[in-house]
Amino acid sequence: MKDPVYKLIELTGTSTESIEDAIDNAIRKAAKTVNNLRWFQVVETRGSIAKGRVEQWQVTLKVGFTVDD
Amino acid sequence: MKDPVYKLIELTGTSTESIEDAIDNAIRKAAKTVNNLRWFQVVETRGSIAKGRVEQWQVTLKVGFTVDD
Amino acid sequence: MKDPVYKLIELTGTSTESIEDAIDNAIRKAAKTVNNLRWFQVVETRGSIAKGRVEQWQVTLKVGFTVDD
Amino acid sequence: MKDPVYKLIELTGTSTESIEDAIDNAIRKAAKTVNNLRWFQVVETRGSIAKGRVEQWQVTLKVGFTVDD
Amino acid sequence: MKDPVYKLIELTGTSTESIEDAIDNAIRKAAKTVNNLRWFQVVETRGSIAKGRVEQWQVTLKVGFTVDD
Amino acid sequence: MKDPVYKLIELTGTSTESIEDAIDNAIRKAAKTVNNLRWFQVVETRGSIAKGRVEQWQVTLKVGFTVDD
Amino acid sequence: MKDPVYKLIELTGTSTESIEDAIDNAIRKAAKTVNNLRWFQVVETRGSIAKGRVEQWQVTLKVGFTVDD
Amino acid sequence: MKDPVYKLIELTGTSTESIEDAIDNAIRKAAKTVNNLRWFQVVETRGSIAKGRVEQWQVTLKVGFTVDD
Amino acid sequence: MKDPVYKLIELTGTSTESIEDAIDNAIRKAAKTVNNLRWFQVVETRGSIAKGRVEQWQVTLKVGFTVDD
Amino acid sequence: MKDPVYKLIELTGTSTESIEDAIDNAIRKAAKTVNNLRWFQVVETRGSIAKGRVEQWQVTLKVGFTVDD
Amino acid sequence: MKDPVYKLIELTGTSTESIEDAIDNAIRKAAKTVNNLRWFQVVETRGSIAKGRVEQWQVTLKVGFTVDD
Amino acid sequence: MKDPVYKLIELTGTSTESIEDAIDNAIRKAAKTVNNLRWFQVVETRGSIAKGRVEQWQVTLKVGFTVDD
Repeated sequence: MKDPVYKLIELTGTSTESIEDAIDNAIRKAAKTVNNLRWFQVVETRGSIAKGRVEQWQVTLKVGFTVDD
Repeated sequence: MKDPVYKLIELTGTSTESIEDAIDNAIRKAAKTVNNLRWFQVVETRGSIAKGRVEQWQVTLKVGFTVDD
Repeated sequence: MKDPVYKLIELTGTSTESIEDAIDNAIRKAAKTVNNLRWFQVVETRGSIAKGRVEQWQVTLKVGFTVDD
Repeated sequence: MKDPVYKLIELTGTSTESIEDAIDNAIRKAAKTVNNLRWFQVVETRGSIAKGRVEQWQVTLKVGFTVDD
Repeated sequence: MKDPVYKLIELTGTSTESIEDAIDNAIRKAAKTVNNLRWFQVVETRGSIAKGRVEQWQVTLKVGFTVDD
Repeated sequence: MKDPVYKLIELTGTSTESIEDAIDNAIRKAAKTVNNLRWFQVVETRGSIAKGRVEQWQVTLKVGFTVDD
Repeated sequence: MKDPVYKLIELTGTSTESIEDAIDNAIRKAAKTVNNLRWFQVVETRGSIAKGRVEQWQVTLKVGFTVDD
Repeated sequence: MKDPVYKLIELTGTSTESIEDAIDNAIRKAAKTVNNLRWFQVVETRGSIAKGRVEQWQVTLKVGFTVDD
Repeated sequence: MKDPVYKLIELTGTSTESIEDAIDNAIRKAAKTVNNLRWFQVVETRGSIAKGRVEQWQVTLKVGFTVDD
Repeated sequence: MKDPVYKLIELTGTSTESIEDAIDNAIRKAAKTVNNLRWFQVVETRGSIAKGRVEQWQVTLKVGFTVDD
Repeated sequence: MKDPVYKLIELTGTSTESIEDAIDNAIRKAAKTVNNLRWFQVVETRGSIAKGRVEQWQVTLKVGFTVDD
Repeated sequence: MKDPVYKLIELTGTSTESIEDAIDNAIRKAAKTVNNLRWFQVVETRGSIAKGRVEQWQVTLKVGFTVDD
């Protein structure tokens, strides 16, 4: 493909473990329905709090993938 | 679902009435094809002008929803 | 006009009623001296407070209009 | 006071009615414990969705008030 | 349609020729599967370098289109 | 003039040809009524789409010029 | 409470271990004096360096909590 | 005037002395042709360098004034 | 304290003299009630105008301080 | 190299021809002293004006390259 | 040194392990050629994806160090 | 030189006196090793506090200079 075109979708992954795990979860979920995932960019890091501790890490990211012909 | 993943889509709703109505219109339209809409964030508020008055409110928003397994 | 050029001016409209009314007021005032107003974009929403209530809505917007030949 | 100093606090007001009402609610709540509220600036407009309609308007704003001597 | 609703998708177009060509490529690719493309907004301009020269222009853009009823 | 003062105006130039041509068109139009144009800064690049191709390039820019005494 | 109001405070948590630990530390400290912590948003990630290694992770975050009646 | 409307213009003031002096120069120049100047907001602070020292302070600001009826 | 936590508050200092003096005034006022002020970051520089001259410098800043155990 | 590290430098390229040519000029100049240039990101597009036409395109970009061991 | 001056350089560190490890790698590499590294600020977090999983964490950061006399 | 290329470096200047003095210090230091400094842009203004007063002004700026052939 001479001039590839990529599409970016925006996802929020969550995890009770870590920021990296929340990102991993979003990418694994996307990989179930989209082929050719290529890169991601973190947009925002948030989370919920319960009993004075982090309950859930919530990371919003853009994921880019090749648009097939 | 232990670690839910959300997808965000970006829409521009319009209305001749108000900012709130433009947002409502975008969400109602999205709800016709997407289940589990959860939240929205306003990205930009614009509008068109005719005869020296606001003709159409145009509100761009991101809408988040649960990605089903 | 093959390639129209637009000018944008920045205004702050105010209202004791609502955000939409503050925007309307700015556009109506601009329409008194400028023809061909075409669109607006909200830049910032602020307001003054008196006696623990919103006293005045203040919305800053850019307004675009056709530059006549 | 020759050179007044102001403090800004950040609040999220909510409403089932409108953006303006969410802002009003935040300011009324703040006015119960803080005197001399002077101005506000909208930081972000979000909301929750239920049954394909806006369930709750959530507006984050900064509120400025005079620091008493 | 009284109050149209638009959807925005984000794409990265590429070209070995120019910024305009990268944008054109993204829009042409999108037009193959989406009707009613209406406008675009450039989000970011990047590129890859090889042998000390621009190898590929990469332009990320949002493309808006009418959501059909 | 010991301490020159400059004014900036915001314009949107359009072209069916290219980004550079849209900028040129805005500056040429401004030069018809303003002397001493000195510099420009691109604010935003957008465009309209028709038949799946770029129809019109729309570039918003600020143009700075010397304020005469 | 029909229309809850939230307050956001800004904190910088630190840790010699990780970004997550710096956020945890800020939230745990806040939980000692504030009830009803609900969510956080990361504002900035910085750190100090000593002997060519990260010495301290410094994460600035906003923490939101319910304002009691 | 029940609901005043303000216009904002953008200026770059310069000075060989200081940032404050550059702002003062822009406002004094504007005051020669515009009545009712009310407030300013600094947009950007730059400057030119000659012989390894600051040659000229250049401060871009928005200036707001009442639009007369 | 192994992992110190800092709190940031936002203030607007004012002065008829200079930007530095407005910042100084905000910090001096904060120091009357808060111990352990450590650093500040300028958020915004504005001011009021009277008789075509700067009447009051208004500088909004964040001030960070150590949260005591 | 298991975990490559890249350095980014910021350049302003200029051209009397086009935006692409200004970027090319910056990259060609950098390639004279830096090996392994890999990518660029446009930071800002400006230009100078003379006789009511664009005199010089000025594009500021970041250029990334591999840091050699 | 009465008034120290710091220089900031921008780096992208990578890692197959974690965000913290990517930052560590960038700082360790920089420490090989620059003395007196003092602090860092994260600019952007991205990564590459392979086989539906994060392949490489890529963190862009600014690193500040003392400029020696 | 038909199409000059400029390089920008980022510095933090400090001073116990004023914002202008912190900028001057950064530029004077840079001028010891770099010829042809041309302009600067302020990126951020911060400072340290001691005994409830500003202890040190810290201004981060970009400085542009001509890249020699």
